[in-house]
Amino acid sequence: MTCICVDAMGGDEPPEVVLDGITKALAADPQLEVLVAGNDDAVTPFCERTERAKPLVTTEVIGMAEHPTEAIRQKRDSSIVRGLAAVRAGEADGFFSAGSTGAIFAAATMGVGRIRGIKRPALASALPGLVGHRTVFLDMGANADVRPEMLVQFAHMGRAYAKVALGVDDAKVALLSNGSEETKGSEKVVEEHQALAAADCGFVGNAEGVDLLTGSFDVIVTDGFSGNVALKSMEGTAKFMFAAIKEEVAHSKRSALGALLLKPAIKRIAHELSGDAYGGAVLLGLKSPVLIGHGATSANAVQSGTLACAAAVRGGLVDKIAQALREQ
Amino acid sequence: MTCICVDAMGGDEPPEVVLDGITKALAADPQLEVLVAGNDDAVTPFCERTERAKPLVTTEVIGMAEHPTEAIRQKRDSSIVRGLAAVRAGEADGFFSAGSTGAIFAAATMGVGRIRGIKRPALASALPGLVGHRTVFLDMGANADVRPEMLVQFAHMGRAYAKVALGVDDAKVALLSNGSEETKGSEKVVEEHQALAAADCGFVGNAEGVDLLTGSFDVIVTDGFSGNVALKSMEGTAKFMFAAIKEEVAHSKRSALGALLLKPAIKRIAHELSGDAYGGAVLLGLKSPVLIGHGATSANAVQSGTLACAAAVRGGLVDKIAQALREQ
Repeated sequence: MTCICVDAMGGDEPPEVVLDGITKALAADPQLEVLVAGNDDAVTPFCERTERAKPLVTTEVIGMAEHPTEAIRQKRDSSIVRGLAAVRAGEADGFFSAGSTGAIFAAATMGVGRIRGIKRPALASALPGLVGHRTVFLDMGANADVRPEMLVQFAHMGRAYAKVALGVDDAKVALLSNGSEETKGSEKVVEEHQALAAADCGFVGNAEGVDLLTGSFDVIVTDGFSGNVALKSMEGTAKFMFAAIKEEVAHSKRSALGALLLKPAIKRIAHELSGDAYGGAVLLGLKSPVLIGHGATSANAVQSGTLACAAAVRGGLVDKIAQALREQ
Repeated sequence: MTCICVDAMGGDEPPEVVLDGITKALAADPQLEVLVAGNDDAVTPFCERTERAKPLVTTEVIGMAEHPTEAIRQKRDSSIVRGLAAVRAGEADGFFSAGSTGAIFAAATMGVGRIRGIKRPALASALPGLVGHRTVFLDMGANADVRPEMLVQFAHMGRAYAKVALGVDDAKVALLSNGSEETKGSEKVVEEHQALAAADCGFVGNAEGVDLLTGSFDVIVTDGFSGNVALKSMEGTAKFMFAAIKEEVAHSKRSALGALLLKPAIKRIAHELSGDAYGGAVLLGLKSPVLIGHGATSANAVQSGTLACAAAVRGGLVDKIAQALREQ
């Protein structure tokens, strides 16, 4: 049995949506147990009527807009803080929440702890690619300032995740830059390129922003500032395009009919881009797998996040990262 | 009369496409003259049969993939180098090319020269926004490493361009970061925030990547590294979405019909995102307006680039930037 702690209070949706997702995950995976963290009235009745679900009753909720470090300091009895403490105590093997990324990152770094030797945990996601080939992208915003040796660790962590989540052996790693030549980039990025090239971490050279969704590389690493800029720019473009299609629809019957017919396809593309199809984002470098879903979550997203977390536990994600560090 | 030098050899398309664009621009603007730079066989017969078009016969062409500084050093008789020299010599008031951005940037900085006091020219573009409100975005890749005082100059240059190209008075300027709070960002970006806040340049705070296409700010400034990452990420997302729609179409008759009906709308959106609808990118900080079109150009893109360049000349773009610097 693999036990995942799931935060019933995380995200913009009511706990019922998360609980539906847990039900789906349990149905899909008979070897799964879920420790359901949240308010008594939400989690206790659910666990009474659900096999392989145990309640972790908490009294506080950290909102999406709260200041991360203040929130986790003040709300010691929140589902995020207590859920991650349960993981540390061995009551669960991994954690999934659709709650505040900042709060989960802060609570997990303190609560679960880093793998020995890891300087900074990083936030990663498996982006969709044009030919169905996904690219693990990190750091998506956890560390705005990094040193070159941290990028090398990001490469190792990304490779371990590509192996466990995507089944990719010996993943090819690229560095996000503003051109493919090794001399391209800010001074800092040129230094990072040199550090990656000198390490044994599958490094093949620079990638550009346009490569993030082509599946040309297995892993693309960058600092958390550029990672956030890239991710938010992609999100903004997708929003712009969906909104622009809506606007066209309002002005033309032909476009309206076209959009209606294309709706299922467009929904699938939006779902792909949201990241929920593949368990959301993952915090790499911690002693247990911690996965974070999109705030605007759904039962399907909670299901895939919970199952992806269980797969990371069973695939030995943490051991693979620890081993890569030892072999450095 | 306003005279714009247009590079007939620039871009991935044959000179005929550029010449068609020049014809359209001349027809649209009776106060426009064009100095057409390019190979004899392309430009001389065209200028003989076209009113208000004069040839600038050159013998060399700088390709899109050539190393910018080497190319401009070796190809002294190229349309880019000679065209920009003609602008410096006063034979034309501005320059438009759909050629290599790097080569044009290098040749223009040397050939046309910087406005007195400008530390670094920057590459800007007016991005489309959700409510039809455009955002001037710079630096899109000219300077990977910048100092805080350069960002302040970028703010002034962006405001001048917002005034001339978009008619926006007293433009609101934001700094690209990974969060809206002033403490967000890398150490470098936090310093840039402080420098912008201390200057009288319309600064209102941080923007995120998702704000680039919402029209929430008139100007968004960043260093050329992050600017390139953001721009290429947006480009990649648009490509991904168009390709994903195509893929859906291949698998479903319903989607295929929908896509067929939506095609004109999708083409309009792609055109908006390509930047060609509003003259492409502009190099700010030079003594004359220099505009750069997308390499995969069209007659319409050349037309709007040439007209936008003439509008920048007539609107006094260069004087407005010089004045903003004097008033600092």
